[in-house]
Amino acid sequence: MIKIGFYQFCPTFGEVRANLHKIAEALEKIEAEILVLPELCTTGYLFTSPDEVSELSEPIPGPTTHFLEKITRRKNLWLVLGMAERDEISKRCYNSAVLIGPDGLKAVYRKPHLFLEEKLYFTPGNTPFRVYDLGIAKIGMLVCYDHFFPEAARALALQGAQIICHPSNLVLPGRGQQLTHVRAIENRIFWVLANRYGTEEREGKKLTYTGASQIVAPNGELLAQAEPDGESVQIVKISSAQADDKRVTAMNDLFQDRRPELYNIA
Amino acid sequence: MIKIGFYQFCPTFGEVRANLHKIAEALEKIEAEILVLPELCTTGYLFTSPDEVSELSEPIPGPTTHFLEKITRRKNLWLVLGMAERDEISKRCYNSAVLIGPDGLKAVYRKPHLFLEEKLYFTPGNTPFRVYDLGIAKIGMLVCYDHFFPEAARALALQGAQIICHPSNLVLPGRGQQLTHVRAIENRIFWVLANRYGTEEREGKKLTYTGASQIVAPNGELLAQAEPDGESVQIVKISSAQADDKRVTAMNDLFQDRRPELYNIA
Repeated sequence: MIKIGFYQFCPTFGEVRANLHKIAEALEKIEAEILVLPELCTTGYLFTSPDEVSELSEPIPGPTTHFLEKITRRKNLWLVLGMAERDEISKRCYNSAVLIGPDGLKAVYRKPHLFLEEKLYFTPGNTPFRVYDLGIAKIGMLVCYDHFFPEAARALALQGAQIICHPSNLVLPGRGQQLTHVRAIENRIFWVLANRYGTEEREGKKLTYTGASQIVAPNGELLAQAEPDGESVQIVKISSAQADDKRVTAMNDLFQDRRPELYNIA
Repeated sequence: MIKIGFYQFCPTFGEVRANLHKIAEALEKIEAEILVLPELCTTGYLFTSPDEVSELSEPIPGPTTHFLEKITRRKNLWLVLGMAERDEISKRCYNSAVLIGPDGLKAVYRKPHLFLEEKLYFTPGNTPFRVYDLGIAKIGMLVCYDHFFPEAARALALQGAQIICHPSNLVLPGRGQQLTHVRAIENRIFWVLANRYGTEEREGKKLTYTGASQIVAPNGELLAQAEPDGESVQIVKISSAQADDKRVTAMNDLFQDRRPELYNIA
């Protein structure tokens, strides 16, 4: 059994140092092996210009990952979080998720499906969907709007992902929770949705995030759910191998029952 | 605007003639352009031997489709229903759906994903997922457990299906309704789930079907829902072209936002 969970919180826009401090404080009190934080949780979400994105983004590895590595090494923790990445060669910015563990930075995933004005500020990610074997579990990462595309979770599940870690800043009330619940069921995997809460208002724009972070089991059981508003840490004990059993009935294995020769959906 | 709907009922096992009579009686009172009936709705579902399946199955075209064609021609109706099909050359049986319209039999779809003991009695279908342009709407057919596989609905939606007609005999409480709701949302299509209700008990086996047939709009709105138990006819007016607009926001078209080059899920 391993302990996995999420930390739902409300970052302050543009205050990377303060947000990291907040995360560090929370992590000190959390006992978990795998913890997921929201999307863009060191910068906030509601950017208003490309210059602002470029200024607040960071290389990976960079100051933020170096800072967090110290904690994950000491606490023997796997941490997945969303952050704004700047590629120092191309100068492109990505809405990325990073996986940082007991040995430091392990992986970067660049969100390929961009939502609303992210399209003005970020380059669509082109990192392949990849599964990371942490020893204690095989995990995949998706970021927010990626969940709308069943192919994304499927690509990870078919590669053996047992847990999908899903940093998010969801804004359509209930929709993301509903979709990720079904993603867990149709792939028979664990799903950790770490959503932020709160409202951001900047230069006449306003977004309210839906909170309600959740952990779903492969059979669809809702193992944990936060309120729509407010900070929340929830940790559950799971056996990650439960996700390797794809049977929905004694005679139906969801992966063996697939008929890929008929789908033709590329 | 066109009128589409479902007829949720409880067939009597093995009584094809009586079930057809019941369907015919109901159709006389229904005003609709497209109507969906449950899976295996002329025979019942809970077969107990291959011989029984073979005996109750029929060729398509055959007596059942001939009988129903007379009604659909006269009423200018498109009818989708599930029925047991026997191929007269191979002697194989299929859990099929048929599309019968104002000009007679239009198409047969053989369910490719078989559930539970269907695997003992039916051959898995190998008809490609195909969309039929009825003039008033472009439709695709899926049968029951097919809904568990996001690839199936996706294959139809990518070919332009505006409405998925889904004859079912669902048995997992709430699950089919939840999954098909999300299938409509993630593809921005209409979905008509025609589920049967009632309990079948045969030779020590027992199944209870979950009813709660539903019609979902591309934006996820539940346009109609039946009770879990009891007969129900529900007809709604829709504009099928609404399903051609795949935008979830002003900047997000669900189909243009797809990144098939990254999925690799065949």
